[in-house]
Formats: sequence, C-alpha cells, structure tokens
Amino acid sequence: MDRKPAPRAERRRLTHVDRSGRPRMVDVSDKPVTARRAVAEATVAVSQETLSLVIDGGGPKGDVLGVAELAGVMAAKRTSELIPLCHPLPLTDLVVAVTPDRAAGLLRVRAEAATTAQTGVEMEALTAASVAALTIYDMIKAAERGVCIEGIHLVEKTGGKSGHYRAGD
Amino acid sequence: MDRKPAPRAERRRLTHVDRSGRPRMVDVSDKPVTARRAVAEATVAVSQETLSLVIDGGGPKGDVLGVAELAGVMAAKRTSELIPLCHPLPLTDLVVAVTPDRAAGLLRVRAEAATTAQTGVEMEALTAASVAALTIYDMIKAAERGVCIEGIHLVEKTGGKSGHYRAGD
Amino acid sequence: MDRKPAPRAERRRLTHVDRSGRPRMVDVSDKPVTARRAVAEATVAVSQETLSLVIDGGGPKGDVLGVAELAGVMAAKRTSELIPLCHPLPLTDLVVAVTPDRAAGLLRVRAEAATTAQTGVEMEALTAASVAALTIYDMIKAAERGVCIEGIHLVEKTGGKSGHYRAGD
Amino acid sequence: MDRKPAPRAERRRLTHVDRSGRPRMVDVSDKPVTARRAVAEATVAVSQETLSLVIDGGGPKGDVLGVAELAGVMAAKRTSELIPLCHPLPLTDLVVAVTPDRAAGLLRVRAEAATTAQTGVEMEALTAASVAALTIYDMIKAAERGVCIEGIHLVEKTGGKSGHYRAGD
Amino acid sequence: MDRKPAPRAERRRLTHVDRSGRPRMVDVSDKPVTARRAVAEATVAVSQETLSLVIDGGGPKGDVLGVAELAGVMAAKRTSELIPLCHPLPLTDLVVAVTPDRAAGLLRVRAEAATTAQTGVEMEALTAASVAALTIYDMIKAAERGVCIEGIHLVEKTGGKSGHYRAGD
Amino acid sequence: MDRKPAPRAERRRLTHVDRSGRPRMVDVSDKPVTARRAVAEATVAVSQETLSLVIDGGGPKGDVLGVAELAGVMAAKRTSELIPLCHPLPLTDLVVAVTPDRAAGLLRVRAEAATTAQTGVEMEALTAASVAALTIYDMIKAAERGVCIEGIHLVEKTGGKSGHYRAGD
Repeated sequence: MDRKPAPRAERRRLTHVDRSGRPRMVDVSDKPVTARRAVAEATVAVSQETLSLVIDGGGPKGDVLGVAELAGVMAAKRTSELIPLCHPLPLTDLVVAVTPDRAAGLLRVRAEAATTAQTGVEMEALTAASVAALTIYDMIKAAERGVCIEGIHLVEKTGGKSGHYRAGD
Repeated sequence: MDRKPAPRAERRRLTHVDRSGRPRMVDVSDKPVTARRAVAEATVAVSQETLSLVIDGGGPKGDVLGVAELAGVMAAKRTSELIPLCHPLPLTDLVVAVTPDRAAGLLRVRAEAATTAQTGVEMEALTAASVAALTIYDMIKAAERGVCIEGIHLVEKTGGKSGHYRAGD
Repeated sequence: MDRKPAPRAERRRLTHVDRSGRPRMVDVSDKPVTARRAVAEATVAVSQETLSLVIDGGGPKGDVLGVAELAGVMAAKRTSELIPLCHPLPLTDLVVAVTPDRAAGLLRVRAEAATTAQTGVEMEALTAASVAALTIYDMIKAAERGVCIEGIHLVEKTGGKSGHYRAGD
Repeated sequence: MDRKPAPRAERRRLTHVDRSGRPRMVDVSDKPVTARRAVAEATVAVSQETLSLVIDGGGPKGDVLGVAELAGVMAAKRTSELIPLCHPLPLTDLVVAVTPDRAAGLLRVRAEAATTAQTGVEMEALTAASVAALTIYDMIKAAERGVCIEGIHLVEKTGGKSGHYRAGD
Repeated sequence: MDRKPAPRAERRRLTHVDRSGRPRMVDVSDKPVTARRAVAEATVAVSQETLSLVIDGGGPKGDVLGVAELAGVMAAKRTSELIPLCHPLPLTDLVVAVTPDRAAGLLRVRAEAATTAQTGVEMEALTAASVAALTIYDMIKAAERGVCIEGIHLVEKTGGKSGHYRAGD
Repeated sequence: MDRKPAPRAERRRLTHVDRSGRPRMVDVSDKPVTARRAVAEATVAVSQETLSLVIDGGGPKGDVLGVAELAGVMAAKRTSELIPLCHPLPLTDLVVAVTPDRAAGLLRVRAEAATTAQTGVEMEALTAASVAALTIYDMIKAAERGVCIEGIHLVEKTGGKSGHYRAGD
C-alpha cells in the first residue's frame, strides 16, 4: 500500500484531519445556531421464519421491535461518546421506527434526529439506525445465525450551510 | 400486520423475550466460565478518490484508519450499555483493523474480541465493527456524500456450548 | 388484563407515545429557550440508631450525607442516559441537600435543578433525589436492613409553557 | 445538629466510611466468588384515568410499561456508575416487570438481578426498580401531575455470607 | 490538623461550597452565553530510549501519539461526568497535540477546547491534557517503569467575565 | 522529526502496538486470574492561603477534600472508558485520600486500587489520583489561579507476573 503524504489541497478536504495529520473536531465556534434534521436507514435481512417470530412474538410489554427502537433512541444520545470527533449537542427530536417487510424478507430501520445547534445530526441518525439494527441482531441471534445488517446510509438532511440533501438526488 | 401471540414453542426460541413478552437478559447464572472469541466484519463503499484520500492522508499521529480502529476498540467496551439485553463482561482481547481494498473500492473493517466469561462476545465484535465503520463515515463525509455501510456480519465464533461457528459453513 | 388500543383522543395525552405506539422523544424543536427550574424530594426512613450513626459518623472528608449529595448531583447530569425519552440538556444549577429529621426518623433529600433550554429539568431533579436516596441506602445497609425510600415527588417547577407548579396547590 | 465524632464501635458498622471519615469501597478482595440474587420493588401511585391510559395505550412496539422495564434493565448495568461506592460487577440475569394493579391504583415495579461475584446485587435491583419507576413518571407526567414514587425496598436477597434475607421476616 | 469552620468571608471565595459546606454547581443561570476558549498543558518525562520508541514506532494506522491525542479529545467530552461540579456543556472545538521534545526528554501534551456557553472550558482542556498523558503512560509502561506525569496546568483562557488569562503573566 | 519505522525488536516492547502499528489491547486471555493491587500519587501545589481555605472550609456534609476523594473513586471505575487500551475489569477495593501538607504547601493525593483479574490496576490507581487532583483544581480555581498538578506516578504495585514494584527501588 502506498501511503505517501497527500497533496495539501486534497488533505484539506478531510476536515477532521488537520495539517499535520492530527485528528481534531471541526471547529464550529463561528457557525450559527440553526435547526437541523437528518434521517438515516438500515436493513436487517432475515428468514421468513424469523420475520414471523419477530412480528408475532411481541407481547404488549416489550417485543423485539420495541426494544430495538428504544435502543436506537438511547444510542443517538451517546453519539458523541462513540464517534471520536463528533460534537456533543442537545437533541430536540428523535424517533426510530423498525418496520417488517415480509415481501423483501427484511426489517427496515428508520431513524430521524433533530437539533438546534452549530452542527448537524447526521451521525446521530446513523448511530440510532445502526444500534437499533445491532439490537435486532442480538435479539434474534438465538433463532437465526448468519444475519447481516445492510445499507446503513443517510436518507435526508436539512439545515446548515450545505443545504438540503436527499439520497439519490 | 398480523400480531397475534406466537405459539409457545416458537416463542421459546427468542430467548431474550420471556413468556409474557417482557424483555430480559438471558439468565447465564448457571453457565460455566469459558474462553470465547468472535470476529465480525463490515465494509464501507467509497469512491476511488476518497479511498486515495484516506490511504494517503494519514500522517503518523492519527489518520482516518487509526481513529476508526480506536473508535471500534473503545465502542466494544461499551457494548452492554448500547445493546439493552447484552451482559456486561470483561474483555481479554480486542483489535480492530481497517484495510483499504482499492480493487473493490472498499474499506474493510474486521473486529476481533475475546473474553473468559459465562457468555460470548459476538455483540462486542459486531459493535466494534459497526462503530469503526460509522467513524470512517464521519471522517470522510465532508469529502464524499452518500457513503453506505454494508455487510455487518459475524465471521467466526468460538467457545460456549454452541461450539464453533464460521459464516458460510 | 384488558389491553385493547385506547381511543385516539386519550392516547394523544401520553405525549411520549406516538400514534402507532412507538416511543419517541417529544419534539421540542420549535419551543423557545427559556429559564427553567425544578425541585424534587425523597425521604429515607431509618431507625433512630442509624440516624445517630449518620449524623455523628461523618468526618470532615466525606460522610454519608456528603457522599449522597454528591451522588445526586452527578446523577442529575446523566438523567438523559437513564430515562430513555429525556432530552439531553445543559444544566446551569444543581444542588442536593440531605437533612436528618430526628423527630420524624427520616433523612430528607431535596434536589434543585435549573437549565436554560427548550425543555425542563423535572426529571433531572427527580433523578438527583432518587440517586441520593439510593446512595444513602447503600451506605447504611450494613447497619440497618429493610430501609425503605418513600415519597419521591416533584415539589415545584417554574418556566416553560405549563407555568408554575407547586405540589399541593 | 450535633455532629461530634461517633464512638469507634458504632462507626465500624458503617462499612463504607473508614476510620478517618473517608469514603471507600468495602474491600471485597478476600471474599469468595458466589452466586447472588436480589429482588427489589417500587410502586407508582396514579389515578384510574392514567392507569387506563397506560394499560390501554401501549401498542405492540413499545408502550409505557415496556419502555420502563427496559430502562430499568439498562440502569441496573450502570449501578456502579451511579452509586459512588458500589463495586462494578458482571450481571448474569436481570429482569424488570411493571404490573398495573387497578384495585390499588398502582403500577408495581419488581426488579430481579443476579451475579456470580465477590459482592451482591442488592443495589442493582434497587437501581433498576427506581429507574423503571422514574421512567413511568416521565412517560405519564404530561397526563397526570403530582405522581409519587413510593416504597422502594429490597424484597429478598440470597447468596453471600449474610445468608437469605426476606423483607418482613 | 485544624479543621474548624472558616470565617464566612473566606468561605465565600470557594464558590463550589455553599454556606453550609454542601457542594453545589456554581449557578450560571444568569450568565450570558459567550465564546470561550482554554489551553492546557502536561508533560510526560521519559528516557531517551522510550522517546525513540514512541517517535519511531508509530505506523500510519495509529501510534502512541495518535492514540493519546484521540483519548484526550474523547475525555474532554466527558469532563462533566468526571469532575463532580463541572457543568455539562457543548464543545465547539477540541484538539490535543502530543509533541516529543528530545532535548528535554519529554513528551509535551497541549490541549485546546472551545465552547459557546454560560461557563468556560478550563476543566475540559485540563482533563484532555491529563487523559492524554495517562494514555501515554499506559502505552509505554511495558517499556519503561516509573514514568511520571508533571506540570498539568492552564496555559491560557479567554472569554467570560474574568477576561483573558495567560500563565506567567 | 525522524519517524522511520523502528526495528522490530524495539517495537515488540511497546505491547499495545501490534506489528503493523495498529493499536490493540494486550491479549490477556491466557493469563491467570490473580489478586492485584496498585498505589498511585499526585500532588497539587497551592498557596498557604488556599491551603487554609481548603482545610478550614469543609463542613461536615462535603468539603473540597471529600468531593475530590469521591471523584477519584468514581473515576477509577471508568478507567477503561477513558484509557483506550485498558481492559475493563472489576474492582474489589478502592480508596482515595487527599492530605494537606502545610509545610510543603501541597495537597497530596494517594489512590489505592485492587482487583482479582487477569490484568492489573495500575491505570485505575493513576486515573483515580489524576481525577481527584483535577477536582481539587476545579474546586479551588476561583480562589487561586495558576494551580499546577505535579508528580502523578505509580508508588507501588503487587500481583501479576512482573512481581512487586516500588518506586525508587
């Protein structure tokens, strides 16, 4: 592998790495406080048998889907502890939905996060979706081995100077 | 969606959900303490331009790959805080490797965890791989939008009564 | 137990549960930032012998009362990690006082919290009082078995659109 | 308040406070590793209207009861972070049950914890019950003001040199 | 040791201790939100042999210096969890630099933190420098015993009503 | 700065860095569980005026010394969260003592930690001493600027294959 230093122009684009290769938070001290929102998704591919188990097995006091959703919400609040260069920020809204899709043989995870801050909540939404998916994995691993989490990605983002982003646009 | 209670026989297989649908940790009080090890992987698909940036941009004091690897190691130690029904357990070994694959246009994340405990470290390895991948995402998102994390899965597991597991076997 | 879905009108009042029964943080994105303050209390009923022990046993470097007060302060800062649908928010003031009441055979815990934010600190005050009470329990349990924590409640709340609240009014 | 130093004999009974009043963990280095289990309870007194709301309002993906139970489970894992002189220890079993009692106008919280360690899980069970109760409070506070948490106490404890304890015996 | 109560005038200067000796956060509810910045330093004295090892041993994926720097950044975000009476606050900038000084036989740690808040980030900068130094210690302790961390101090502070501070002025 | 790769022989001595420069926990999977203990110290140099303030200002419910000691105890339990390559482990004993030394113009911090585990508690003792010292700093910074923390070092260590270590031997 070739690892010679990159030209300065290129390196500047990786905003978390300063000139000498040292990681740092992006300095947002001079950015305005604005309303920001982000949506992320993930999927967990499971067998029809497991899908039935997940859909049917949930009693009224807490089933696989409910535990996964709550795990996602709680993980979003800890994003800056997990992702080293994320800014700690308050969250003003957070919801995680896990929806079974029988036709596709999938559990779809959708996480939405919002803040009013100097930086955005893209990583919060992605962390929520990821941890909800990991929780599904944990809760069904006794029933099905070899489950795979796929497609963790940003769906939409609003607020901040980079404007509105929607995947696939 | 049909959500009638599942037959008891089926429900028993979802060991995290007790008879009344209430989530609980699996009771491992009577399981023996044994050496256990697990390996998990994830991939982050990126453009050739970003791949070059990641490979070349790292100075000796902490580059994208190094930060992601360390984030994975640290996240593994917090698995039981993130995954609601995971048991807290000591870890005896933990390493995360991020390897660029130019031909495939991927960054490959591999996490290995070990413990000597009454339960295994499958979720620790998966959490490490996931958070390392999320950290890569965070550190390159200014350079490339629309990055997707794929294929978070267990590669291998040893120890415990379920014996040796290897994906694809 | 009868668990049929509630009429929509009623369900709306439980603001943490959205229409489909999925938990979410209350969306406070559009609420103004205002000064908010809350006071909560709890009591720990103990024998006269234990009460004497607690009152007399404290040296200048940290006694039962001091440890419990500090535990309450520190726990308040972690409220949003403990209470799943609480918003993370900055705290601008926090004090916990444990006062022995010989006549009543009680240790009285009073916690006061303040913030300047889009939502209030009721749960922070209650969490502080609860953890201070649990800490008292922990520190005296070798001296007295069967101790009981009672009366964890909100005493007063100011700020926010619901105005001033005082228990018993 | 009279706060003169207590006679040494009495002070020794407060095992968390060493000779000079300095708090310390109880030294369990020489205690054997044994199986231990503890059960704790708490109650939340609510109006019949709120009780109906809680019982009926929960959908299959996460209702008040389910969120409170999960919050209790997760809080138990953090007991040693909250209670200053608690030992960090692995947990081998943990379940929290919230049961509505219409006749009494109560939500009853019961938490059971187990470990195989050098010290017990009394505080883990009490912390789980307390945080589950606080979570109920948080989730119904928009529907009913002035809710009070009562009767947080140990119900039963087994394992360790102090033998079997049952409240009320 | 003489520990009689201090005159009230003196005690008021210790702003974390209220009139009755009870610890509390300083109440910053009425302070304005302003931009604040702080720089702290620490040093780790090591042998020339260890210094060479640290300088040379670091590969591009994470060396001693890089791990220590990242540990400092992450610790700064947890300052209010560690320092009991610190306010939780958002951080807008954070960077830690570890620089080997061959002539002096030292590794120099420099941490800089910024926020826009009602209180400052002095403790965040000091915590970052301290944890980075402890991490260096941890990573070299197999190579050199008896390493000592020295000179943890504030270098500079701006913002807030106390104005600009620079050590040695 | 010269940063060419170190000879392999030297690099092996830095046990946290594997062959390719990637950080990993030391693998302790095959090490025996033994009793281990460590003592660390730190000092905080303060003016005589501040020293008087600290000694006299403490009431029975929590003074500077008591808060600092408790902060050290609690921080020790979080060592593996702060120091990236530290193993999470149970603690069986933990005490922090802060002692004023009027003659030297110092507050002396001494932390002692113990475990029964596959690895030692050197970092736990050092973390406890450091955070206790930082807490002293935080609590006196309004009274004295420019305070410096010095001499964080290991005093003694027992258990494990490296045997007994005492500083200065």
